[in-house]
Amino acid sequence: MFESAQIGHHIDKDTFDAAVPALREALLDAQYELKQQSRLPVIILINGIEGAGKGETVKLLNEWMDPRLIDVLTFDQQTDEELARPPAWRYWRALPPKGRMGVFFGNWYSQMLQGRVHGQFKDAVLDQAIAGAERLEQMLCDEGALIIKFWFHLSKKQMKARLKTLRDDPLHSWRISPLDWQQSQTYDRFVRFGERVLRRTSRDYAPWHVIEGADPHYRSLAVGQILLESMQAALAVDPKAKHKGNVAPLGRSIDDLNLINALDLSQRLDKKDYEQQLVSEQARLAGLLRHKHMRKHALVAVFEGNDAAGKGGAIRRVAAALDPRQYRIVPIAAPTEEERAQPYLWRFWRHVPARGKFTIFDRSWYGRVLVERVEGFCTPADWMRAYGEINDFEEQLSNAGVVVVKFWLAIDQQTQLERFEEREQIPFKRYKITEDDWRNREKWDVYTEAVGDMVDRTSTEIAPWTLVEANDKRWARVKVLRTINEALEAAFAKHKK
Amino acid sequence: MFESAQIGHHIDKDTFDAAVPALREALLDAQYELKQQSRLPVIILINGIEGAGKGETVKLLNEWMDPRLIDVLTFDQQTDEELARPPAWRYWRALPPKGRMGVFFGNWYSQMLQGRVHGQFKDAVLDQAIAGAERLEQMLCDEGALIIKFWFHLSKKQMKARLKTLRDDPLHSWRISPLDWQQSQTYDRFVRFGERVLRRTSRDYAPWHVIEGADPHYRSLAVGQILLESMQAALAVDPKAKHKGNVAPLGRSIDDLNLINALDLSQRLDKKDYEQQLVSEQARLAGLLRHKHMRKHALVAVFEGNDAAGKGGAIRRVAAALDPRQYRIVPIAAPTEEERAQPYLWRFWRHVPARGKFTIFDRSWYGRVLVERVEGFCTPADWMRAYGEINDFEEQLSNAGVVVVKFWLAIDQQTQLERFEEREQIPFKRYKITEDDWRNREKWDVYTEAVGDMVDRTSTEIAPWTLVEANDKRWARVKVLRTINEALEAAFAKHKK
Repeated sequence: MFESAQIGHHIDKDTFDAAVPALREALLDAQYELKQQSRLPVIILINGIEGAGKGETVKLLNEWMDPRLIDVLTFDQQTDEELARPPAWRYWRALPPKGRMGVFFGNWYSQMLQGRVHGQFKDAVLDQAIAGAERLEQMLCDEGALIIKFWFHLSKKQMKARLKTLRDDPLHSWRISPLDWQQSQTYDRFVRFGERVLRRTSRDYAPWHVIEGADPHYRSLAVGQILLESMQAALAVDPKAKHKGNVAPLGRSIDDLNLINALDLSQRLDKKDYEQQLVSEQARLAGLLRHKHMRKHALVAVFEGNDAAGKGGAIRRVAAALDPRQYRIVPIAAPTEEERAQPYLWRFWRHVPARGKFTIFDRSWYGRVLVERVEGFCTPADWMRAYGEINDFEEQLSNAGVVVVKFWLAIDQQTQLERFEEREQIPFKRYKITEDDWRNREKWDVYTEAVGDMVDRTSTEIAPWTLVEANDKRWARVKVLRTINEALEAAFAKHKK
Repeated sequence: MFESAQIGHHIDKDTFDAAVPALREALLDAQYELKQQSRLPVIILINGIEGAGKGETVKLLNEWMDPRLIDVLTFDQQTDEELARPPAWRYWRALPPKGRMGVFFGNWYSQMLQGRVHGQFKDAVLDQAIAGAERLEQMLCDEGALIIKFWFHLSKKQMKARLKTLRDDPLHSWRISPLDWQQSQTYDRFVRFGERVLRRTSRDYAPWHVIEGADPHYRSLAVGQILLESMQAALAVDPKAKHKGNVAPLGRSIDDLNLINALDLSQRLDKKDYEQQLVSEQARLAGLLRHKHMRKHALVAVFEGNDAAGKGGAIRRVAAALDPRQYRIVPIAAPTEEERAQPYLWRFWRHVPARGKFTIFDRSWYGRVLVERVEGFCTPADWMRAYGEINDFEEQLSNAGVVVVKFWLAIDQQTQLERFEEREQIPFKRYKITEDDWRNREKWDVYTEAVGDMVDRTSTEIAPWTLVEANDKRWARVKVLRTINEALEAAFAKHKK
């Protein structure tokens, strides 16, 4: 894997000087085209052997190109805000928007390699991290990002020589990293695990480029050339021609039975039972959120459902149980301009709660497989891959201690009609009903099918869907509260073992 | 000041129950109107005596209104990301956008009161904090925000009784704050300094409302009513009719002499001197940014100037001196949707560097007193007040250890013409020239006047403007680098005393 990067690549100064002006101009052109199109972000990952010229190369790229369109990002020590959230949060918040370039030093690969080299975990955990990185990159590319991965390489002998030179040069001695690297043991392990990582994560959509780092002229020109060609290729793609791959059909129900129709919507609570149970579930929730185990968890509740199914009312009953300082309600409507310049899940990642906190999503990332699918706002390939991306997202939340509960509030068509009509008559409820609601109603069956597929594909042990019979609002509200409480208790129970 | 809030206000349950439904409905209406107009944010500050029902009232407001449009924010312990920036940064990042409400617990007032009550500083520092709060609120209101400030009050006797009840109630005992409060000494000091704060910060645009907290019915209804009336009044204002106050003219130059015309634009450097000085200033900058004192500072450089004056080139020479991981270049163009939903300075506050970091603004907050003034994008009242707001902003940066350097790159009309023509001919420079540039050129004199006013009103000891003679690019680049270096050295020198 690293053979070609140990054979002494070299470019002489004259050749270098002759090649640079045209390369610079072409890179600038590509950069402005990128800005102009504002259709895709460029993410450049910088990894490899210490002393192989990573920093110098990035510095040079910033000189060659317009640095105003480049963000160079480091990920050293996590801040306490980062430590309180899933590990990938720090990368999500740093993603460059469409039209810009982000250079990621110290990215997900460095983190997993450091951990493995220093024996913090074994191969199995490394492989999990590798698989996570693959899924992240696949998703970013599917969302239009151009990812370019550079591995700067040196043979052991080259590395030793290079570190020695750096150490002896007063202008550069500050750059030398921990002594650590001067021990060959670290080198061997780094290369060994590096190879494992590169082998598994070099994909057609985001290949690794191994660059021999010994000769500055060679490595600068090599990197510049790859960057240029990658950008040119990505910018030349006709965005409309994408997603031409096969989209496997999901299959349709061949009888009339489906999850939603199978619900017993006649379930109800009478007023007295409701008031009793509501108060007791609210008190239980308040207690759980104050429990000491909550400090190790966060809570995310997702509310989806038919229009007029009572999401707002259910959310208010949940909120009423709590000190408003503990929760935050995020209503999901059309994405903002900054959100549209990012991958689909970005606008949900930005609201991931810190440990100890509770975020309620009033509509959610499931919009992609519901309204966007049904209304054709995205391609079938987009919403089909969303199932997997969403499962990944929720798994990351869950791994970080976030308890995820998801509700589909279901009502029947007759109940919806009655509520729509009521809304049109009560003054302060009128804001709640729009033309869209009536239009959506006509697509009842298509929505029902989408809901069925959503539940089948994203109801998982770590983040199960709860279908809530919501013809009776009382029943629905109590069921929502009880479900949240049970999920929290189950999560807390694990601490006792 | 607190007399009316110690006389035992009371509302009986029947009156309360009768009043609530209409109040709720009106509050909901106001909330949706707020959302609909999306023209102003509502900021509610919650302060006062411990045990006076602050938390309960906010909880109730969240029940009465639609909690999906309210963000309740606490400001306890600062995170390390907050500690690395000016104190106000945490409030800026939490401001509600237009159309939403933010409830600020533990805001700037609690911070200053805690500090004074516990003797961390004396009245003079308290008064500085008070003046800072006033300026912040004045600015927020001028930018359209509705600020409502509640002080929940209890007499000493009421407070003692209330804390005792809370302590004895198992459902509430978790709420009791530090024992501290049960000592009368703290109460007396809190009330004394609270009065000082309220007296000085109750303004027509953001008055305090003192609420007696003993009776839940009274305090809830009182707060709800004030909130409703404040919102209704703010929503009824015709936005176009605002800023009708007097705008004092700045006065015009009565001869032809002005700062810009007085510059000696013939200054230049020959190639040899340039190369020598450039390299040496770049090395000096690189050294300074690695200096241990840099850990206590941050650096902000603002680049403004005539079109084609060479801002981009100067920025690149500064960047070329540095490791790209240390700096970030923020190009300022039209604000995004999320930025437009916030006060003017918000989009600059979000890029304030953490300690140890360097942010370069390619155009800046001075847009308001330059292009926005000249093109009429804001009212005279808006850009006139901007001078003061900007000085406040920069003073806050400076107080937090941020070194602020500001450059105006000046060229003459002939030089600009030559550069425009050159840009139109060189392929990879064409992106740099637009119709706007030619149009701006016709307003040369108006821009010159705006620049003069800007420098006169915002060049301060803590953040001086440097006028850079930029007909000769070499001269300009070296002067920029040298100025930054001198500013950093001056800041570092203070540590040696």
